[in-house]
Amino acid sequence: MALVVQKYGGSSVQDADRIKRVAERIVRTHKEGNDVVVVVSAMGDTTDELLDLAEQVSPAPPPREMDMLLTAGERISNALVAMAISALGANAISFTGSQAGMITTAKHGDARIVQVTPHRLRKALDEGNIVLVAGFQGVSQDSKDITTLGRGGSDTTAVALAAALEADVCEIYTDVDGIFSADPRIVADARLVSDITYEEMLEMAASGAKVLHLRAVEYARRYQVPLRVRSSYNEKPGSLVTGSIEEIPVEDAIITGVAHDRSEAKITVVGVPDTPGMAARIFRTVADAEINIDMVLQNVSRSGEGQTDITFTLPRTDAPRAVAALRSGQAEIGFGDLLADGNVGKVSLVGAGMRNHPGVTATFCEALSAVGINIETMNTSEIRISVICREEQLDDAVRALHAAFELGGDELAVVHAGTGR
Amino acid sequence: MALVVQKYGGSSVQDADRIKRVAERIVRTHKEGNDVVVVVSAMGDTTDELLDLAEQVSPAPPPREMDMLLTAGERISNALVAMAISALGANAISFTGSQAGMITTAKHGDARIVQVTPHRLRKALDEGNIVLVAGFQGVSQDSKDITTLGRGGSDTTAVALAAALEADVCEIYTDVDGIFSADPRIVADARLVSDITYEEMLEMAASGAKVLHLRAVEYARRYQVPLRVRSSYNEKPGSLVTGSIEEIPVEDAIITGVAHDRSEAKITVVGVPDTPGMAARIFRTVADAEINIDMVLQNVSRSGEGQTDITFTLPRTDAPRAVAALRSGQAEIGFGDLLADGNVGKVSLVGAGMRNHPGVTATFCEALSAVGINIETMNTSEIRISVICREEQLDDAVRALHAAFELGGDELAVVHAGTGR
Repeated sequence: MALVVQKYGGSSVQDADRIKRVAERIVRTHKEGNDVVVVVSAMGDTTDELLDLAEQVSPAPPPREMDMLLTAGERISNALVAMAISALGANAISFTGSQAGMITTAKHGDARIVQVTPHRLRKALDEGNIVLVAGFQGVSQDSKDITTLGRGGSDTTAVALAAALEADVCEIYTDVDGIFSADPRIVADARLVSDITYEEMLEMAASGAKVLHLRAVEYARRYQVPLRVRSSYNEKPGSLVTGSIEEIPVEDAIITGVAHDRSEAKITVVGVPDTPGMAARIFRTVADAEINIDMVLQNVSRSGEGQTDITFTLPRTDAPRAVAALRSGQAEIGFGDLLADGNVGKVSLVGAGMRNHPGVTATFCEALSAVGINIETMNTSEIRISVICREEQLDDAVRALHAAFELGGDELAVVHAGTGR
Repeated sequence: MALVVQKYGGSSVQDADRIKRVAERIVRTHKEGNDVVVVVSAMGDTTDELLDLAEQVSPAPPPREMDMLLTAGERISNALVAMAISALGANAISFTGSQAGMITTAKHGDARIVQVTPHRLRKALDEGNIVLVAGFQGVSQDSKDITTLGRGGSDTTAVALAAALEADVCEIYTDVDGIFSADPRIVADARLVSDITYEEMLEMAASGAKVLHLRAVEYARRYQVPLRVRSSYNEKPGSLVTGSIEEIPVEDAIITGVAHDRSEAKITVVGVPDTPGMAARIFRTVADAEINIDMVLQNVSRSGEGQTDITFTLPRTDAPRAVAALRSGQAEIGFGDLLADGNVGKVSLVGAGMRNHPGVTATFCEALSAVGINIETMNTSEIRISVICREEQLDDAVRALHAAFELGGDELAVVHAGTGR
């Protein structure tokens, strides 16, 4: 008997009808002889409606109360799915994050999972129940208050439960068929990726692919939880995230896909004195404003000038605050100027096969050049190449790379041996 | 410094605007130097909407899941009120029934309060917070599951907290100005009753007055919690429920009001053998069908026949089930026939002054007779007279009694001394 954890997002349970469809799938999985634990997000627009109500009564709601409010959404959807399952003749019981043993830090709105103690779930499963757990929430070990887990919270709940219960698989149900070699809305012949390693999925998620949250993938990788991403609207098996790039033979030239991101902005701090500690001051200033930085580029200083430029990317919505923070520290840090640009897009190629396969970088640059795209910044990891270009050229860049690495259709893309990297 | 418990019903918090008005009143009470604990029902139609969703996904939702679902409503409203209070500059913190120490029996949908351990509330109050508590819910001492308290649950929550915290008063806010000498929609000159004893209020509630739930009044009486019923739409002081009829001088001839009830039906079991145990069998049969009986009448058996008739009233919606249960037991119990009548209304006169004041019953019957109303059954207690009449005559009966006992206007009704009872 296997233990399966399933997670259903808000659109999968947006109304009574969808809830009944989800219940049918869950019962089917159970009838196949599996223990089933299900994590359900709040129905459709519920979270937004609650946020709207909160905004109507208060301009700055206390975080603790915001968590009390928002967690009602998951409570509702989980109870309804449990009811729908019961109506099909199976036994189901729903639990809050607290009841499920989801212990977290105290930071309301962005709590981190500290420990999962699923005794009550185990007992309910042993008694023959299908178990529902409200996602996105837990209880603070310090204050005993209810907390919400921030971005990717429901996916992470599912993975954390799968890890704690040593599940055979964690299935993330969504409204697309799985992970694609590129966004199917941009690339007509984007191919479903059946298998992808944890590291490649991390890079895809970090590079803009929205199907799985980075956080959930990292948790899965750390605890070796196999993750399956599939559609709640059909029976297709979707994509399986498991395994490490270490297990992929070095000779295999796998390129997995192209990710894109239009949510960033680029800031260049011009004329930074090329002395120790300057970069640190710049990044500390931005970090103190609670802004996360993505790519960083610092090139060698132009000889003789004793100055260098530092470029970094960050969420576009945070750019004004970052600029303000840096400007107020300009005299102290001593840089010359600040350039902020929101009209950028990031495109990334991800694949285990990049390691030890010369020529990928060249093919990458040639593909973009051939369609007239200028590379503004470039940044690489062992299995990823990312560049920043003009936002309006982003879709073209995705298509050009996808074609250049032959990611379309049914064939796995292979880098031609012999080309220098 | 006084401790005030306030309870606001669903219509008082039906939207963001009403929530803000309620928050203002709460903060005002707090600024007057009081500790304030507030119990809030779910917003307006929330409970009905959740029940509707439940019905859409399941014909017979498991009671445990129904409680998980419905309690989300109170969680939402309490968090929003806490947010609105914070926006006004005061500190507020909301608690679930479980967090507030509301320990109950395990019966989902109709749990009884076993114990209230408000340590967390006391601590929050001592730290200067206004405390919000979700009404209508608690946690089962046995199963550790969330429970809902059934009818009158939110009023009872408020009274139970007031008792446990030794509050100076428990204020029940509603959409009418207080308790009236009769339903103002039926009697044009119905008067607000400023003060009423626990026993009289119990009789009024049991006789159909809907402003306060019987259960909450009984809890208040047992723990001597002063109850104030007032409007959330104005500043009128409303009605204070406190004290016992024992404290009212026997000479005072107070008649408090007229209550009416159109939710009952009348069943007569005809030709019951007049031997020991027959009545018991009839009531056991009805009780086994989980039906509550209100008034019971058994008159002496007609001489020589060895038979008697037993009449009782019950909720109209339960009548078909009661008839079915009795018919299936007819051969065993051995009665002759069953008469069921749903077209009845119950009208009751309530007042401490009935004791030791002869003539009340006569005045009562004369008033009804004068407007052509036939009394079908009559039933009395120390401070109440109730009769069953045709439903279509009920409003006339209320008006006739209200006038006969001079309950209208500004004067307290006084029974004329010297009239025989």
